[in-house]
Amino acid sequence: METIRTPRIMQETSKSHLLKSRTLGLVPTMGALHEGHLSLVRRARDENDIITASIFVNPIQFGPGEDFERYPRDIEHDMEKLEKAGVHILFMPDIKAVYPEGFSTNVKVSGISERLCGAFRPGHFDGVATVVCKLFNLVKPTRAYFGQKDFQQTVLVNRMVKDLNLDVDVVTCPTVREDDGLAMSSRNAYLGPEERSAATVICRTLQAVSKMIKAGDVGPADMKKSLETMLKKEPLISELQYAGVYDTRTLEELAEYKKENLLAIALKIGKTRLIDNLIVEL
Amino acid sequence: METIRTPRIMQETSKSHLLKSRTLGLVPTMGALHEGHLSLVRRARDENDIITASIFVNPIQFGPGEDFERYPRDIEHDMEKLEKAGVHILFMPDIKAVYPEGFSTNVKVSGISERLCGAFRPGHFDGVATVVCKLFNLVKPTRAYFGQKDFQQTVLVNRMVKDLNLDVDVVTCPTVREDDGLAMSSRNAYLGPEERSAATVICRTLQAVSKMIKAGDVGPADMKKSLETMLKKEPLISELQYAGVYDTRTLEELAEYKKENLLAIALKIGKTRLIDNLIVEL
Repeated sequence: METIRTPRIMQETSKSHLLKSRTLGLVPTMGALHEGHLSLVRRARDENDIITASIFVNPIQFGPGEDFERYPRDIEHDMEKLEKAGVHILFMPDIKAVYPEGFSTNVKVSGISERLCGAFRPGHFDGVATVVCKLFNLVKPTRAYFGQKDFQQTVLVNRMVKDLNLDVDVVTCPTVREDDGLAMSSRNAYLGPEERSAATVICRTLQAVSKMIKAGDVGPADMKKSLETMLKKEPLISELQYAGVYDTRTLEELAEYKKENLLAIALKIGKTRLIDNLIVEL
Repeated sequence: METIRTPRIMQETSKSHLLKSRTLGLVPTMGALHEGHLSLVRRARDENDIITASIFVNPIQFGPGEDFERYPRDIEHDMEKLEKAGVHILFMPDIKAVYPEGFSTNVKVSGISERLCGAFRPGHFDGVATVVCKLFNLVKPTRAYFGQKDFQQTVLVNRMVKDLNLDVDVVTCPTVREDDGLAMSSRNAYLGPEERSAATVICRTLQAVSKMIKAGDVGPADMKKSLETMLKKEPLISELQYAGVYDTRTLEELAEYKKENLLAIALKIGKTRLIDNLIVEL
């Protein structure tokens, strides 16, 4: 595995592969890698000639008071895992190389950016769209891989790719879960033992409500109440940010079920913000 | 000359040329072509294997009440001129192909977008940045050619290219002028005979002030007053929007001259908005 730190070298390296008609897979990450990330690498390896993984904790997608400074970093183990999973190129640029002095461009996807997590993390999705646009231009991937756990991010990236005519196939891969169902996330490391145990309320609630929707008993508005009632039974939830049924493309709350429905939850357990979702097909 | 109307076909065509290691030159235009545009084509032809010119009157860079509807259109003559000048590919997409339903992404270059023309045309440079980003992703040019007459546009595009890591060389070409010095512009067609004659006040003033700056007599603040005094002598000027000496990279007004200085004017003659500039090197 080759490590590249300089954006221009990353771009030239990808160009030389493309000139040889090789397909390129990109797995963009913020490091602190878990099985979820590695499942993306394996999928990318199955579908492309050259696999690039990026590790970059992107400052502009963290708001003031968020966890940019304490976001888990574990470069040594990350590199071992990526090498073992078959990554060819690790792109790991410095912040100053990504955002040099005078940087002043922002990519915004209106609507999608403001809904769900966007309402609680203003500016977050501008930071995501901007850095993903940059990574796509630097790595020039044939395909880029994202996890379904960050469903809103996949909707945002798909919209941006279409709108800006970026020449990338965006591939969304299934959420990878712990044995008890908790969606894998680098932020799970923040949870104390009792919080970790309480956190399974999210996936348990999603599963229960998914079954209720499929049984066809209750409409979205009543379903939202059921979701909230189930979640409020867990005393370690310090803040319920959203829970409901949403359009899978616009992320707007649904008044009636569609063929595909996004069932999504965001909440805090103690100080740790967790999200999860299921797509319910009817 | 091949005409392409479908974005995806444009992208595939460029990719096939790049795979053969050909260099691609792009001249983006809004049509109503004059010698200024053709000088860009000739420069592109000297420096690249395959020349693409685009004609697209970009609705999102026109504000409400601006001249989108009446912007001059002359496709037939444009095509003749481009073919004669040696263009290989004319990219001429429909508005709906460029901005399909649900389009919601915006590229913004803060600071640069708001200054000079941006103060009088809110949203204009967001529209320019967004469409140029799209064109670069579709045509994948090695080099793209812009005229110095729209100096702020060249600063904006250069900043965006750097910030988003777009893999394009931006080439700025000298302003082409009529025999009496008026900068060529598709909008000159709006001018009546007396207005056309009055419009030369812009280049005459720029030339006179440039000489004064080079003579080293007067600082930027007094120079601004001289500029305004000269321009106010022309009774057909209906609105003076800005006139002054600016930083060539940030476009901020200068308190002291630098090595390179942007001397720029925007004004209306009757209902027609005209701009022009000179770079004064000391």
